[in-house]
Amino acid sequence: MKTLSTLEPLTTRLLEIQRINSAASLLSWDQETYMPTGGGEARAEQIAVLQGIAHQKLVSPDVQSLLSQWVDPATGLAADTTGDTWDEPSRSLLREIWRDFSRAKKLPSEFVVKLSRECSLAQQVWAEAREHNTFSMFLPNLRIVLDLKREEAQYLGYHDSPYNALLDVYEPGATIAGLQPVFATLKARLVPLLRRITESRVQIDDSILHHSYDHARQLEFGRLVLTAMGYDFGRGRLDLSAHPFTTSFHPTDVRVTTRVHEHELQSCLFSCIHEGGHGLYDQGLDQRYFGTPLGDSVSLGIHESQSRLWENCVGRSRPFWRFFYPMLRQTFHDQLHGVEIEQFYATINRVIPSLIRVEADELTYNLHIMLRFEIEQDLIEGKTQPDDLPVIWNRKMEDYLGIVPPTDTEGVLQDVHWSCGSFGYFPTYTLGNLYSVQFFEQATLEMPHLEDEIAAGQLMGLRRWLEQKIHRWGRMFTPAHLAERVTGSGLSPEPFLKYVERKYGELYQL
Amino acid sequence: MKTLSTLEPLTTRLLEIQRINSAASLLSWDQETYMPTGGGEARAEQIAVLQGIAHQKLVSPDVQSLLSQWVDPATGLAADTTGDTWDEPSRSLLREIWRDFSRAKKLPSEFVVKLSRECSLAQQVWAEAREHNTFSMFLPNLRIVLDLKREEAQYLGYHDSPYNALLDVYEPGATIAGLQPVFATLKARLVPLLRRITESRVQIDDSILHHSYDHARQLEFGRLVLTAMGYDFGRGRLDLSAHPFTTSFHPTDVRVTTRVHEHELQSCLFSCIHEGGHGLYDQGLDQRYFGTPLGDSVSLGIHESQSRLWENCVGRSRPFWRFFYPMLRQTFHDQLHGVEIEQFYATINRVIPSLIRVEADELTYNLHIMLRFEIEQDLIEGKTQPDDLPVIWNRKMEDYLGIVPPTDTEGVLQDVHWSCGSFGYFPTYTLGNLYSVQFFEQATLEMPHLEDEIAAGQLMGLRRWLEQKIHRWGRMFTPAHLAERVTGSGLSPEPFLKYVERKYGELYQL
Repeated sequence: MKTLSTLEPLTTRLLEIQRINSAASLLSWDQETYMPTGGGEARAEQIAVLQGIAHQKLVSPDVQSLLSQWVDPATGLAADTTGDTWDEPSRSLLREIWRDFSRAKKLPSEFVVKLSRECSLAQQVWAEAREHNTFSMFLPNLRIVLDLKREEAQYLGYHDSPYNALLDVYEPGATIAGLQPVFATLKARLVPLLRRITESRVQIDDSILHHSYDHARQLEFGRLVLTAMGYDFGRGRLDLSAHPFTTSFHPTDVRVTTRVHEHELQSCLFSCIHEGGHGLYDQGLDQRYFGTPLGDSVSLGIHESQSRLWENCVGRSRPFWRFFYPMLRQTFHDQLHGVEIEQFYATINRVIPSLIRVEADELTYNLHIMLRFEIEQDLIEGKTQPDDLPVIWNRKMEDYLGIVPPTDTEGVLQDVHWSCGSFGYFPTYTLGNLYSVQFFEQATLEMPHLEDEIAAGQLMGLRRWLEQKIHRWGRMFTPAHLAERVTGSGLSPEPFLKYVERKYGELYQL
Repeated sequence: MKTLSTLEPLTTRLLEIQRINSAASLLSWDQETYMPTGGGEARAEQIAVLQGIAHQKLVSPDVQSLLSQWVDPATGLAADTTGDTWDEPSRSLLREIWRDFSRAKKLPSEFVVKLSRECSLAQQVWAEAREHNTFSMFLPNLRIVLDLKREEAQYLGYHDSPYNALLDVYEPGATIAGLQPVFATLKARLVPLLRRITESRVQIDDSILHHSYDHARQLEFGRLVLTAMGYDFGRGRLDLSAHPFTTSFHPTDVRVTTRVHEHELQSCLFSCIHEGGHGLYDQGLDQRYFGTPLGDSVSLGIHESQSRLWENCVGRSRPFWRFFYPMLRQTFHDQLHGVEIEQFYATINRVIPSLIRVEADELTYNLHIMLRFEIEQDLIEGKTQPDDLPVIWNRKMEDYLGIVPPTDTEGVLQDVHWSCGSFGYFPTYTLGNLYSVQFFEQATLEMPHLEDEIAAGQLMGLRRWLEQKIHRWGRMFTPAHLAERVTGSGLSPEPFLKYVERKYGELYQL
């Protein structure tokens, strides 16, 4: 039986590439947190150079010749010509290295550098355009990035739609054909549910969230919750950025960010819990495999399931607040004086069609994703031109959510993704929502006292369960296979739909 | 006449290398400012990988073959076989590229990676050893780094002493033989001057510096002074670190750090001015030449002259405080109430033998350097063993300054330099002190109203003069040549000695 040690000549090379990628990630983190405004152009070049080198090293003849000793080039599966079979980790490792290698091999290094540079620049212009609330400022850069991503899809190759090539990068195995029925089911059940909620005689007033909340105390409370979740500050940080995100350079250095708005208590609070969920995944990866696919997260959908599980299944649940609400009320005594836990629970679960995806409730959130999923397919397939985006965006917002953004900043300019070329990323948010409920229900099944633990502020049991069942496996299994191993069944919208129907049915007395 | 455009194939390659070095510098900056404690080992590997790649790219056959078309391999001067001569920038550029290339060429890439990794690790162990006040904790790592630096000197080659090989890295052209007479002159005049000062009937009480000063206000004042100096926060930042430093990734992103001690008003204040001087140099480099030696600072001695000029010639002068003291007193009204400017001026210029180099006055500072210069020579030449360092350190402290550190942290462990392998760095501090006075006197000669401008808080005239005379030239001239161009004469301890004799003669009524 051949084991991982046979593959060391290969993994040593991958480790070096990962160091370079980690350095590039720190450069991006710095760009979003501390970089002075003047440093943007030079930063774009630095990141582009590093990504170019990482790419060149991955597609080097050296890596190729090592890999082709052991892998069937057609399938990417471990070749077994000697009769001496591989153990399971080695087979998975070879499959995943092949995946990365063969994808990288299709892209010219100059293209990788150019795409990286243009995305860094476009991201900076997007931020300016947002500030000036002017889509047209961003349009030239968006055109460049979109053209490059369409070019990328051509290099990568695809079935049915070039969009599938991009989707697969973020969620291995995902396709339009596979996702469309899922979204159709969601739409068919969520839109009527939303209507019943808006027509319900129960009206939730969330004005208490919009009192004045001290900046430092909000951050301190976010830090407290992160600590309770088991996020290790000895191997992480919490910083501020315009858009909350998580990034990792190694399981010993995983950083989350948040934002604090004086009159939006939920913003810092839930972004801390959300990013904390991502952070736990990255801190929970197996350090021994760092630099190889076995030490890497499996897909964005699974990653998002971790953040949404903590944010929603835990962070917007009654048990969680049974423990944390008294502390929150102590921290913000004046603002929450006389507000009972049940009122607070209702407030943070209020369903209302709103403009901004990241602030949307659990139910309307998926409608935000649907419209992005549709729009970006059309952009990549060339059915929609970037110029028409604001009009199309607003029309779809009206169709799905019944509201029209008064400005581009609150509409088509709200998300960073397209500026950094992340077409195909959005659907993974909905996958994350669906998986999060599937995983949480499984955890509840396997840990009968989970609810009591959460209500006692004991979050470590859940954290350990997630680490054992999901985090530590890295890319050992495909996302679909992992989900099946954990829950006994594949992706399904049913648990999520039942969860929201139950939760909101009760809250809105439907 | 051949110009820089001929060299573009070469400078394009250098630019890529500089991007990698900039990335490595950001990784180091982060290590000193924001990195979580757990991230240290992974960080050491990341930096080592980047430095290894930068080295490999510099010594590549590609660069070598381009360079050898144009440069005489023996002298490093522009070859002129075609009869078509080079313009001055091109000749300088070729000379300096050759200097970098030929030095890098002598070092094996594995050695560069190893040295980088060991220095990152040793620096982290040094910080721990300091915290625990235990030299022996640091000793194993110091031994490794010292051995590597001695190995480096062998690779590089040298005349007279291996220490010369290391010295030349930081200060091109400097040698023990050249420096010894300078230090001897300083010692001969400073030691008696120090004795006269300590025996003077004038005694300066600096207790006002040790009242309680609010952290945020100290930082705010530091920021104010930096802004007045012309340090551009749109292309820079001020952060906190255990040891103040300046780093640059590009003239558009130059960062300084400081530290704030509640009971040491001078600490944040003067480190901001000092690092600001470094920062102005880096922000003042010519962006068009970024990535090439013409866009790089010329030496550490000249770099230090910029920080010391601002810190001492400006920041510890009466004119400076005529403008800034009223603002400082307004900021710290309670603490400085009733303290007149003359008393404050005396306080910040108090001469007293003290333990910590970075807190030393202008006069005793050079004695701190002398003992380090002597010790590190002996270490590199193998005349001293690392084990004996604490004893030797304390003995020399007693000889030169008449005091003995009660702890290693206040003694041999105080400086980061040896942990990061920076042997040969210390003498450049004294060079900086000497040059700073030479440059400032020249500036005063050429700008007759300089003192009045400073007294009116107008620091831009001086900043522009320094930029025109020094910053913008990069490595066009050697350090000695640059000093001669600016002042009309080479390095000399005389102006510095006259300056301190005059300044302290008056202050201490000698």
